[in-house]
Formats: sequence, C-alpha cells, structure tokens
Amino acid sequence: EQNRPGPSNTIPLLPTRPIQLIQQFLADTMRPSVFFYLTYALCVCLGLLCLLFVTYWNSHWRGGFSWDGSALQFNWHPVLMVSGLVVLYGNAAVVYRAPFTWKQKKNTWKLVHAGLMLLALLLSILGLCAVFDFHSGSHIPDLYSLHSWVGICTVVMFTFQWVLGLAGFLFPCSTTWFRSTLKPVHVWMGKAILVLSLTSCISGINEKLLLTLGEPYNSLPEEAKFANSLGILTVAFGLVVFGILSRNKWQRPDTDSESVHLLLNEDNT
Amino acid sequence: EQNRPGPSNTIPLLPTRPIQLIQQFLADTMRPSVFFYLTYALCVCLGLLCLLFVTYWNSHWRGGFSWDGSALQFNWHPVLMVSGLVVLYGNAAVVYRAPFTWKQKKNTWKLVHAGLMLLALLLSILGLCAVFDFHSGSHIPDLYSLHSWVGICTVVMFTFQWVLGLAGFLFPCSTTWFRSTLKPVHVWMGKAILVLSLTSCISGINEKLLLTLGEPYNSLPEEAKFANSLGILTVAFGLVVFGILSRNKWQRPDTDSESVHLLLNEDNT
Repeated sequence: EQNRPGPSNTIPLLPTRPIQLIQQFLADTMRPSVFFYLTYALCVCLGLLCLLFVTYWNSHWRGGFSWDGSALQFNWHPVLMVSGLVVLYGNAAVVYRAPFTWKQKKNTWKLVHAGLMLLALLLSILGLCAVFDFHSGSHIPDLYSLHSWVGICTVVMFTFQWVLGLAGFLFPCSTTWFRSTLKPVHVWMGKAILVLSLTSCISGINEKLLLTLGEPYNSLPEEAKFANSLGILTVAFGLVVFGILSRNKWQRPDTDSESVHLLLNEDNT
Repeated sequence: EQNRPGPSNTIPLLPTRPIQLIQQFLADTMRPSVFFYLTYALCVCLGLLCLLFVTYWNSHWRGGFSWDGSALQFNWHPVLMVSGLVVLYGNAAVVYRAPFTWKQKKNTWKLVHAGLMLLALLLSILGLCAVFDFHSGSHIPDLYSLHSWVGICTVVMFTFQWVLGLAGFLFPCSTTWFRSTLKPVHVWMGKAILVLSLTSCISGINEKLLLTLGEPYNSLPEEAKFANSLGILTVAFGLVVFGILSRNKWQRPDTDSESVHLLLNEDNT
C-alpha cells in the first residue's frame, strides 16, 4: 500500500531539466516509424526540389527542350539523369523501409521495387540517347570526359544489377543458395550505383557550366548560383537516402510473420 | 556400427559437380577473416595506385610542385585531396574492421582511428590552402564552381565530424546517453563525407582537365586518358571502402569480451 504511486509521487517523473526535455523529445521522435516518416518526408521534398531545379535551369537558361539533335535535345540529358538515376532510383531503393509496407507481402514490394528501378533505368538510358544524339548532330566525340566515363560505368552497372536482381530475386527457378549469396552483393552494388550516380551528376552539372558559361562562371551569375544549388540539393537528397539505408532499425524484417510481430510490438509501446 | 562412415561412404561427400566446387570455394574464402583480408588488400592496392597516379599526373604533365602561389602550388591540391580526403580517410574508416584488432582494447583503436582522421583532415586543409594561395596569386575568384561548393562542404563537415567524435567518444566527461545517440549519426556522417569526397575529387579532376586541356580534351590525349583513369581508380577505391563498411559481419563487436568470444569461435570452426 505504502509504495503505490500517489499524485505527489508522479511529479518528479516529469522532465524538469532541459537535458531531460531533449531526451524526452528525442525518445518520442526517434520511435522507428515516426522518425522514418519524418526522414522520408525530407527525402521526398529534396527529390521534388531537384526535379524542379533541373527542369527550371534547362527551360529558363538553356532554351528549353526538343528532340532534334540540337542543344535543346541535350537539355533532356540532365533532366532525365537527375530524375531517373538519382530521384527515382533513391526512392525505389528505400521502398522496403516504410513500416506500412511490412504488413503486406514482401513479393508485392519486390515488384514495386523492380518496377520503379526499371523506370529509373529506362529514363537513364533515354538520357544517354539525348546526349549521344546531340553529339552526333554536332560532331562532338562521345565519352571523352571523366564525367562520361563515370556516367557510363554507372548505367552499365545499373543494368547489370537490375538483370541480376531479376534473375536472383524474382525468377522462380532461382535457388535459395543463389539468393542468399546475391543479397549482400545486391545491397552493396545498390549503394555503389547511388555513389556513382551522385558523382556523375555533380561532375556533369559542373562540366556543363564550365563549357557553356566559360570565364564568366567565376563571377557567379544567376544561372551559376542556381545550377550550383541544384548540385547541392542533389547531393543532399543522396545523403538522406544513404541515411535511410544505413539505419539497421529501418530494415524490413526478413520474414513476413516477423514484420507483423515487430509492428504489433511497436503499436503496443 | 553399420552407420559408421567407411571409405566407400565418404566419396559422395566430396564436391563433384562444378556448382558444389564453387560453393566450397566461396565457403572457404567467405570465412569472415579471409574474405576481409582479401578485400582489404584490394583496398590498399587501389589506394596506393591512386597516390601513384595523382602524383605522376601532376609531376609529369602539370610541371611538378612548389609552394610559391604559382600553378605549381595548385598541383599540391589534387595530390593532398586524393591522399587525405580519400585514401587516408578510407583507410582510417575501416581500421575497426580488421579482425586482428578485435583482440586488442577498443580504446587503442579509437586513438588510431582519431589520429589517422586528424592527419587526413590536416592534409585536406593544406590542400585547400594550396588552391586558395594559387587563386590569390593569379587573381582567380575562390569558391565559384560546383566542385568548390561541394568540396568546401566536405571539409567543413569532416571538421565538424572530427570535433564531435572527439567530444563524444574520447573525452572522458562524455555521457553514455550522448555516446549512444551520437554513434548512428557518426556512422552516417562518416559515409556521407566519403560520398562527398568522391564527388569532389571526380568533379575536380574533370574540371582541371576541362580548364587546362580545353578543346583537345575531346580527342583524349595521353594525359586525359591517364587522369580519367585516376578518377576511375579513386571511385573504385571508395566503393571497396563502402563494401567493407556495409558488411555487418565485419563490424567489430561492441564489447571487448564479445570480440574475443567471436574470434575463438571462428578459430575453432
């Protein structure tokens, strides 16, 4: 009876010092699902900003878009690469992490992951066609700069990863041994492709500004500030995706029953 | 007695089909420590090649080194950035993964990690001084290109990470709560800085070639092929470091007693 907590006993449990308030706030927002959705919202916002910035840059300062072998066809290149290889790729990489998907069958989300990745790959290949067509129309050699070397490696590795992923994780004839051997390679290659994509995009935006603005680039005209900011946004998006991928607590549990168990536990706490 | 395996019973246990031979080979080389040291050897070789390539590029094609505000002072910039921000940083990031260090006190390896990182940071800051001095000697504005924006973010973030790491993990007055909150942030920022370093290096090598070679870059002279290869080697080094960092099995166990236990287990299997 004497140990039962009365109203006077509960007062010291309230956080009174600033450090306790911070700990309490962090404990609330760090609940796996709340913190995930906050981070994912940041990821989506940054992704949309990247799309907005790359489109505005090419339509406002670079003359807009067409598909006729001219410089206006080239303008599709940055838009398609940023959309496909970075924004869509990044979003497709983190679909498994959303806790609401854990209640559903893993196979459904495998198909969503593979479908989004295929779309990302097709946009990237279309982006390569845009630049190759422009080069052949303007008699500019292909694949000379370091940007183009890294970029082509990125798309080749992405294609290889997609085909291998299809064979290993979606084809019914794949063996358990092959799947479990492939999984860590698939995870590592997925991150490697994102690193390559970011590297390609930043070196590409930098190259485009050096080639088109020339000397005046160093006085930072409006276009330079805007396109540099696009670069910073692109890197920021990529780093948030890395943050989501590297947090072990946000990994989808391996079996469907385990997912439901974890979700029930979190709902109860 | 009748179930005891005799010579005739052991024959089917030997791998006879090619797939079994591959599985056996992988099982042998995938033993955590063997596979780690193979990957680490690749990492060291790629790192040394990067240092060799960046030094040879700047001494053979760019006129060598001096510290007098001329273009020869600029040549220190790529050498110091690749050495500090990529090669030394990458090696310092993986020191905890070497199984032989698990037998030793974690505090010793914390000091090695912090010491190598400090050296990497100092080399990077010296690399920035080289380019700022060259710019002021040649009346070139600072920090206009996207390369420089990403680069400066990298070094600022690296400095912040180092100071925060020192305060959280080495200062005796740090609290357990602060350490455990900081750890995932430290791990994520460590990877983020490596992504930024690679992005800065590739865009930087590309920028240097565009500015110094000009139009002839697109006919791929010897220097362009060599420096592009340096870029590819740098990215390859970074991706191997990412591979080492993303493999959960290679993480140093949290407590010293757990490390010894795991090592004994591996020695016995």
